[in-house]
Amino acid sequence: MKSPIYFDNAATTAIAPEVVQAMLPFLNEHYGNPSSVYSLGRDTRAAIETARKTIAQILNAQTSEIVFTSCGTEANNMAIKGAVIYHQVKRIITSPIEHHCVIHIADYLKEFHQVKIEYVQLLSDGMVDLEHLESLLKDNQDKTLVSLMYANNEIGNLLDFEKVSQLCKTHQALFHSDTVQAFGHFPIDVQKVEVDFLSASAHKFHGPKGIGFLYQKKKSKVASFLHGGGQERGYRAGTENVYGIVGLGKAAELAYQHLEKDRQYIQSIKDYFKEQLLANFKDIQFNGHSKNSLFTVLNVSFPENDAASMLLFNLDIEGICASGGSACNSGASTGSHVIDAIRPNSNRINIRFSFSKYNHLSEVDVVIQVLKKYFS
Amino acid sequence: MKSPIYFDNAATTAIAPEVVQAMLPFLNEHYGNPSSVYSLGRDTRAAIETARKTIAQILNAQTSEIVFTSCGTEANNMAIKGAVIYHQVKRIITSPIEHHCVIHIADYLKEFHQVKIEYVQLLSDGMVDLEHLESLLKDNQDKTLVSLMYANNEIGNLLDFEKVSQLCKTHQALFHSDTVQAFGHFPIDVQKVEVDFLSASAHKFHGPKGIGFLYQKKKSKVASFLHGGGQERGYRAGTENVYGIVGLGKAAELAYQHLEKDRQYIQSIKDYFKEQLLANFKDIQFNGHSKNSLFTVLNVSFPENDAASMLLFNLDIEGICASGGSACNSGASTGSHVIDAIRPNSNRINIRFSFSKYNHLSEVDVVIQVLKKYFS
Repeated sequence: MKSPIYFDNAATTAIAPEVVQAMLPFLNEHYGNPSSVYSLGRDTRAAIETARKTIAQILNAQTSEIVFTSCGTEANNMAIKGAVIYHQVKRIITSPIEHHCVIHIADYLKEFHQVKIEYVQLLSDGMVDLEHLESLLKDNQDKTLVSLMYANNEIGNLLDFEKVSQLCKTHQALFHSDTVQAFGHFPIDVQKVEVDFLSASAHKFHGPKGIGFLYQKKKSKVASFLHGGGQERGYRAGTENVYGIVGLGKAAELAYQHLEKDRQYIQSIKDYFKEQLLANFKDIQFNGHSKNSLFTVLNVSFPENDAASMLLFNLDIEGICASGGSACNSGASTGSHVIDAIRPNSNRINIRFSFSKYNHLSEVDVVIQVLKKYFS
Repeated sequence: MKSPIYFDNAATTAIAPEVVQAMLPFLNEHYGNPSSVYSLGRDTRAAIETARKTIAQILNAQTSEIVFTSCGTEANNMAIKGAVIYHQVKRIITSPIEHHCVIHIADYLKEFHQVKIEYVQLLSDGMVDLEHLESLLKDNQDKTLVSLMYANNEIGNLLDFEKVSQLCKTHQALFHSDTVQAFGHFPIDVQKVEVDFLSASAHKFHGPKGIGFLYQKKKSKVASFLHGGGQERGYRAGTENVYGIVGLGKAAELAYQHLEKDRQYIQSIKDYFKEQLLANFKDIQFNGHSKNSLFTVLNVSFPENDAASMLLFNLDIEGICASGGSACNSGASTGSHVIDAIRPNSNRINIRFSFSKYNHLSEVDVVIQVLKKYFS
């Protein structure tokens, strides 16, 4: 079987071969528990601290501000719940198109910790209405956390990160940003743009699954989301996933070494795909903002069409990987809460194509030819 | 440098080479997100379900009763918190020598969910006082969860699992058991001995770090500890650690294929070590029960001795890996809460030696010779 055309890099990415190579010694001879005092443990401890330093340098943060977690979900849960438990946050302002790991922890905190949830309004292109955000923040009787993602995982919209940071600062709100789709793709400097919490997940930038991190600003630190041992200086209980952490560090290092080159290359694939779609099909639309968007994501809205209702399955048969919503829910038949928020009651067919440095322009041509079978 | 004598297998174990081999395809070509609908995702989904079937068969459970988590800590947290949130548990009965991931989640639930915590008394050898447990259970006004570990990670004591299961059944209490040190070493059949929740961690039986599982009995299911996407049929949010899960499955398969042979072999190392200690040193004692004990763990109590106060560090210099308490806290200077519970105010030196199938009798001889430098 020929290898598939993988246009679903927002769901997960192939691990870079260099990352696997970096991980292997920690799957083999370096197996010590990093909490152990002997050399076999100190080796793995050192590898963890090297990865932490890599992440801290990329973010211009202190190493003590980086906590490794089992995934982006845990990092986001930890920040949001921690803000409520350890910083007495009584109100969370978020948006209806956040990842479920933000929306559902907020729901939980509403039910069990009496937190008030307010949703910022969206503009028609899915961008956060910053004036509405400001008006919500002005009413700051309750200690507030703003949780808004840097880049939307389905439609690619980029937040005005600097503006939101300023608004939070002005109105004494804590600021959490889910940067799972952005870290590894954009320079983020926490000294230039103040943020209390940032999350990331290695498998979104050619690192391994099962590992992520939380950046928590020194003055905003929370405690471990898991309750148990004193690992990660008390900030994350549970024996460390050493090879995962090593892989995360290596993947981040590679991503930021080649950031601009990769960005240009991936943007060229997205641009070409967009151009070819517009040239070859009638009534093509794009979900999300046309410019302030992830260079990795193109969410295409095709016209309603009986033959296309099974489009994702048919693309699979042709060896093309793409998705209908976020991967986390792509098995579910409930559709996408993001698309529903910006296109209520639409019967159009929405497909997210997402790209990486391992894709090629020629793959776009193949996909266009296949799509022609379904849309004229 | 020659390879160390690794007598700290209760802290973590070397990954079996067969396990690494099983994981590699999922670090390389099989990178699809298991929630994705296309074949690249179905491959990884299938691998996860195969691992789940392996675990379910070992436990004589249903596949739908197994949830993969990022570690034993998460599995234990999930069960205990879940019992409170989803089964209206108002009282937790546990012991003072449980792992911190049990004790600390209980403390959290006491603070934030008004749960009552009661500690069962221990006998002088650290065994749970079953009469006291029964007397606590008889007063069953509050819905109760009993959380008692199958095998203690520091002193090796084995619970009378069947008796505790019966007591819980008789008194309508839910029963959770941390089986992190037992799964992979003992046959556990949830049809024979009823239990509501069991936890395990792959890196304790030659699997990878960063992956564990929770068995939750069909009628006792709780919800995801992490809040987010619908992975693991809604029981664990966050993109699945595919290679971790594959490694866990393979490690469990190997462990149960060779269970009896490995048990006899490892027991022979423990027995020989014990015999040599008694033959060569004065005033040697052993922490924990002499018979109802993990065959993998020997917790030795040496007499107080100035030269030996830095014993673990000196053992490290000699290339011998052992630990003072659990690995999770071995970096901390607070000592062991387990030893404190059974030997309060003792100044003796307590070292946990723990063995695996990769150890040899000849290593015991080397360790005995080294110990002679410190104890006559």
